[in-house]
Amino acid sequence: MIPDAIKKFIDAFSRLPSIGPRLATRLAFYLANLNKNDLKNLEMALHQLATINRCEKCFFVSENRLCFVCSNPDRNQKTIAVVEKETDLLSIEQTGKFKGHYFILGEVSPRKTLDVAQRLRLQYLKERILKELGGRAKEIIVALNLDATGDYITQIIIQEFKNLAEKITRLGRGIPTGGEIEFADSETLASALERRV
Amino acid sequence: MIPDAIKKFIDAFSRLPSIGPRLATRLAFYLANLNKNDLKNLEMALHQLATINRCEKCFFVSENRLCFVCSNPDRNQKTIAVVEKETDLLSIEQTGKFKGHYFILGEVSPRKTLDVAQRLRLQYLKERILKELGGRAKEIIVALNLDATGDYITQIIIQEFKNLAEKITRLGRGIPTGGEIEFADSETLASALERRV
Repeated sequence: MIPDAIKKFIDAFSRLPSIGPRLATRLAFYLANLNKNDLKNLEMALHQLATINRCEKCFFVSENRLCFVCSNPDRNQKTIAVVEKETDLLSIEQTGKFKGHYFILGEVSPRKTLDVAQRLRLQYLKERILKELGGRAKEIIVALNLDATGDYITQIIIQEFKNLAEKITRLGRGIPTGGEIEFADSETLASALERRV
Repeated sequence: MIPDAIKKFIDAFSRLPSIGPRLATRLAFYLANLNKNDLKNLEMALHQLATINRCEKCFFVSENRLCFVCSNPDRNQKTIAVVEKETDLLSIEQTGKFKGHYFILGEVSPRKTLDVAQRLRLQYLKERILKELGGRAKEIIVALNLDATGDYITQIIIQEFKNLAEKITRLGRGIPTGGEIEFADSETLASALERRV
């Protein structure tokens, strides 16, 4: 009934976050109607994502060895905000209230614990604190979502880093419990940063 | 701040229908975190949309010269449903109530009239009725959205085809005025087909 190329597109794209079969179907026919040039542009845009590097220090996306934060000498590397996702980092940057460094943990699935890649990243953060900060950060801000999974992962991080930081804080409960950092407005996020506990 | 590849992806994909900057940003980072194989699969799925053909008769997507409807001898080619989009055709097919042929007009922008491509398609339909149906279709069902733009385009089609069909009908007002065909449930759409006026 529907050509294979359309079916395959719907199948592949409906698995992406917030897409689903209905939007994937709509996109498939929309894109099949585009001229070849516009389609080629989208294809190139997708293709170039494969070339993206990660910052050696914090794992944020970067064109260079270090990202725009880690390569900035004005940022305080003794204060480290651990975030789940790149978009969480961007949301915190937008508040203009944070002058420390970041550490990207990677997305945590609901009701899941840390996976192997995330454990390796935390191990790497420990080594960094030992080597670069003389074994003790000034502060680690665990900026994870304030839901059950975030609470659980935060407790793990507090346990593992309690001897590696003068203090370990979380974002202030200015963000409603259960809310996601990615969707918080800049002001709420700023006050949560200021009133961190 | 953000690598060029990410910016370009957000810029290109945020222009697609129902995507927008926030979802495009989320997708960009999600995709940048995928392994190369999964990313390659999505790229191929997108690439293959460029290979899609259109049915010579009705302009629906097809791997062959004729689509699954136009190539089916059990379908009645004297009854023609004019629809905007491929997804409208699929919605009508899902009701199982329509045994005629289709004609894809192409998406109509709100408060716009027909563009050159759409006028050419209608011209092509006229010639098809003259050549293949002896100058007269049994029925043309103008199955456009029941909003102001759909009403306007319907009037144009009625004027242009009044001598080329025994009757020209619209979908019954079982669909709420202002509603879009794509989002109607199968039952409502079936009763709108049965009670067409």
